[in-house]
Amino acid sequence: MAKEKKAPRPKAQTPKGFRDYFGEDVSQRAEMLRVITGVYHHYGFDALESAAVETVEALGKFLPDVDRPNEGVFAWQEFDEDDKGDWLALRYDLTAPLARVYAQHRNDLPTPYRRYAMGPVWRNEKPGPGRYRQFYQCDADTVGTASVAADAEICAMLSDTLEKVGIARGDYIVRVNNRKVLNGVLEAMGVSDAGQQADVLRTIDKFDKVGEAGVRQLLGKGRLDASGAYIDGVGLSDAQAEPVVQFLIAKGASNAETLENLRGAVGESAIGAEGIGELAEIAGLLEAQGYGADRIVIDPSVVRGLGYYTGPVYEAELTFEILDEKGRKRQFGSVAGGGRYDDLVKRFTGQAVPATGVSIGVDRLLAALREKGRIGGKAAGPVVVTVMDKARMAEYQGMVAELRQAGIRAEVYLGNPKSFGNQLKYADKRESPVAIIAGSDEQERGVVQIKDLILGAKIAENATHEEWKERPSQFEVPRAELVSKVREILSGQD
Amino acid sequence: MAKEKKAPRPKAQTPKGFRDYFGEDVSQRAEMLRVITGVYHHYGFDALESAAVETVEALGKFLPDVDRPNEGVFAWQEFDEDDKGDWLALRYDLTAPLARVYAQHRNDLPTPYRRYAMGPVWRNEKPGPGRYRQFYQCDADTVGTASVAADAEICAMLSDTLEKVGIARGDYIVRVNNRKVLNGVLEAMGVSDAGQQADVLRTIDKFDKVGEAGVRQLLGKGRLDASGAYIDGVGLSDAQAEPVVQFLIAKGASNAETLENLRGAVGESAIGAEGIGELAEIAGLLEAQGYGADRIVIDPSVVRGLGYYTGPVYEAELTFEILDEKGRKRQFGSVAGGGRYDDLVKRFTGQAVPATGVSIGVDRLLAALREKGRIGGKAAGPVVVTVMDKARMAEYQGMVAELRQAGIRAEVYLGNPKSFGNQLKYADKRESPVAIIAGSDEQERGVVQIKDLILGAKIAENATHEEWKERPSQFEVPRAELVSKVREILSGQD
Repeated sequence: MAKEKKAPRPKAQTPKGFRDYFGEDVSQRAEMLRVITGVYHHYGFDALESAAVETVEALGKFLPDVDRPNEGVFAWQEFDEDDKGDWLALRYDLTAPLARVYAQHRNDLPTPYRRYAMGPVWRNEKPGPGRYRQFYQCDADTVGTASVAADAEICAMLSDTLEKVGIARGDYIVRVNNRKVLNGVLEAMGVSDAGQQADVLRTIDKFDKVGEAGVRQLLGKGRLDASGAYIDGVGLSDAQAEPVVQFLIAKGASNAETLENLRGAVGESAIGAEGIGELAEIAGLLEAQGYGADRIVIDPSVVRGLGYYTGPVYEAELTFEILDEKGRKRQFGSVAGGGRYDDLVKRFTGQAVPATGVSIGVDRLLAALREKGRIGGKAAGPVVVTVMDKARMAEYQGMVAELRQAGIRAEVYLGNPKSFGNQLKYADKRESPVAIIAGSDEQERGVVQIKDLILGAKIAENATHEEWKERPSQFEVPRAELVSKVREILSGQD
Repeated sequence: MAKEKKAPRPKAQTPKGFRDYFGEDVSQRAEMLRVITGVYHHYGFDALESAAVETVEALGKFLPDVDRPNEGVFAWQEFDEDDKGDWLALRYDLTAPLARVYAQHRNDLPTPYRRYAMGPVWRNEKPGPGRYRQFYQCDADTVGTASVAADAEICAMLSDTLEKVGIARGDYIVRVNNRKVLNGVLEAMGVSDAGQQADVLRTIDKFDKVGEAGVRQLLGKGRLDASGAYIDGVGLSDAQAEPVVQFLIAKGASNAETLENLRGAVGESAIGAEGIGELAEIAGLLEAQGYGADRIVIDPSVVRGLGYYTGPVYEAELTFEILDEKGRKRQFGSVAGGGRYDDLVKRFTGQAVPATGVSIGVDRLLAALREKGRIGGKAAGPVVVTVMDKARMAEYQGMVAELRQAGIRAEVYLGNPKSFGNQLKYADKRESPVAIIAGSDEQERGVVQIKDLILGAKIAENATHEEWKERPSQFEVPRAELVSKVREILSGQD
């Protein structure tokens, strides 16, 4: 008789490019998002949570050109008998859903509509080291007003947010630029061909890598890059290239000086003057509220996003240095960015709806806070009550209940209690600060043993160090003093 | 010349069965989840956040039998040249991912592993009124211990959680049953055929609808239901049916009495005795910690989940009455349920791993809290500073900044300020409690106007009511007293 073939066991694996988050990684992010949304709320922004799933049609950017629209997004077709169901997809950001929501509910929403949103977004891209296909965004946008007071407000809110989560003033800067000024510069250069404009945009994107001289070369004949390859230039004359170089290096000692430099760069361009006027208005609004150049500054070298946005753009950068993978010092860099985009809702309604908004890179900001020691550090493990006598489980559960009522995180060991060593190994894995031991001997005498596991670990590490050896790491206290003694030990461990 | 055909505008619509959540609906849920996870954390549970996406293979329940595994889950195939990519799917609950995570990371995780998780899950089902294809779950599970102390702990935690979010003691009850007792009852009945066992399970599921007499009929020859249709019975003799009826009505005046009744129902069955022993142990552990029958009670009439779980099952029910759609009084009902399941991890590793856990129905619990007035109620709209003079925007933004620094939610009107009526309409839509008015006249005199919009609305509603008419709803105060006067008005509005 042939043996019955068993189905192979499924692999216990996250799909490629996805990951699991454990413990503090989850709760620290939740806490940070709570603080951020608290600031947003205070600014009058309302929460919006749209579903993870949208129709591909509404997402727009990734319309199905062939059979399956799976470039960039995770998409699938709704099943119906004729295979004519809608194509659905996971959202790839929080802005496309906002456009759909605003178009759908615009009669019920206030205008302007200030909304914040947070949650995961999905990208169907090739995963790489540190690049995941699901990640968090936290956005705030104001829809339905052309007033740059809305842009100024978001810059101020971004500054407040960074300080509130724990980035000190001086450790960050919000930099503001304006697409209209760049348009003015292009006008002053006489670059009106769309292809050539795109070439100029691509070139200025390299400004922070290649510097002023490099940009001049790339705008002109071309440049020999570090690898020895020759990069063709855009082919502008030196005179033609000058305005955009002046634009990139326009930042002066004050906003007033920067604006003056920009006036030089845009020449007679009307759109350029309009952009400079907007920047001046933003600067004025922020300065009047006390947001000085130590927090928010006009800086035309911010070019990220200039291709996408239609007016003011802003970026928050952390200015402290960290060591990169190779041990070299570098600035932490950007943690948030945004700007004004006026055409997103138009796709649905035909009407242009001005909007401006910011997106915070949640994971990068979290990494920065860890780097600065603003979160994490202290062990958040629970007090573990060990089980010396299985029959007395109710008593052990009573102890943890008492500890919890006093606000102390606590749990009873629920594995096989036979090996006490395993219980201590468990406490170690849980990063427990304290273990409680109460056997029948202790019960008879009305006491419990309390083990300071942090101190115990220090003693074990420094076995020859007399200072540690002399300090006891285990205490016997009357049962009634359990909570107060644990609290005392915990407060000493800070 | 033929007109160029324009692409049709996309429809601004959520996909069928999905919805958007606005404002308080989002922030109230976030706050409730924060409180719940706070309790879980204190009990020593660690957060886990797995991705929304799993391989269909790992999800298991919905393996692809044909081409597309889209029954019940949203699934799609990863694209590769040969069309041989993995099938991926959105998770349909938080338990299947837990099993995958535990199997994948078991060497790094503590054993037992207490974890909580919260987030959306997705079901590819036909949507209906109030039934959405994306909804929230909030789970806590203990993996890797067979001790029913883990079950008792989760029941206690569930009770604590309900009280912490605002369900008063007496307004809920956690009821505990045990699948093993039912197995013992089936043994005592002599029902060993799997098909007949399933029939019995299906019948007892109807206990709360048809009552004791109805169950007797359905276990026997059958029953004429309310609509006049005849429902065939399982075909047991009255004597054979007796143990399961005794099981269903076993609840006595005390846990001890209930357990005694159950002993009668299972007769000589060993598995039945084991199940009763477990219930006795759970009852003992909980009573020793002070969780009396007013919070947690052994109740064999809880049959939901008995088909799925392998040991203790538990359910939290809210006992206060609400009016249903038809205006009839009914109990609010179940908001959480769970139990012991020992086979989920085995699919991956071949080893049985005992586990027990609870899932809270987030939206139902939120609805209950709203019903009891524990959340919502008070307007959470921002103070709106109106714009009387566009040129003085910096001053208005300064006012909202001051209000915010005092902890008051505030915003400046950013729409077109030409019509003051529109600004007040906006404030109304925002449910603003207070509006600030400061034109050039006020500025010259160093004052601001503060309008109490809640009082104003009351006066408008009760125009003939002298009491309201005599109270002013608009105040002129010196600019320096803006914050203190707003605070005074807000505190009077509670």
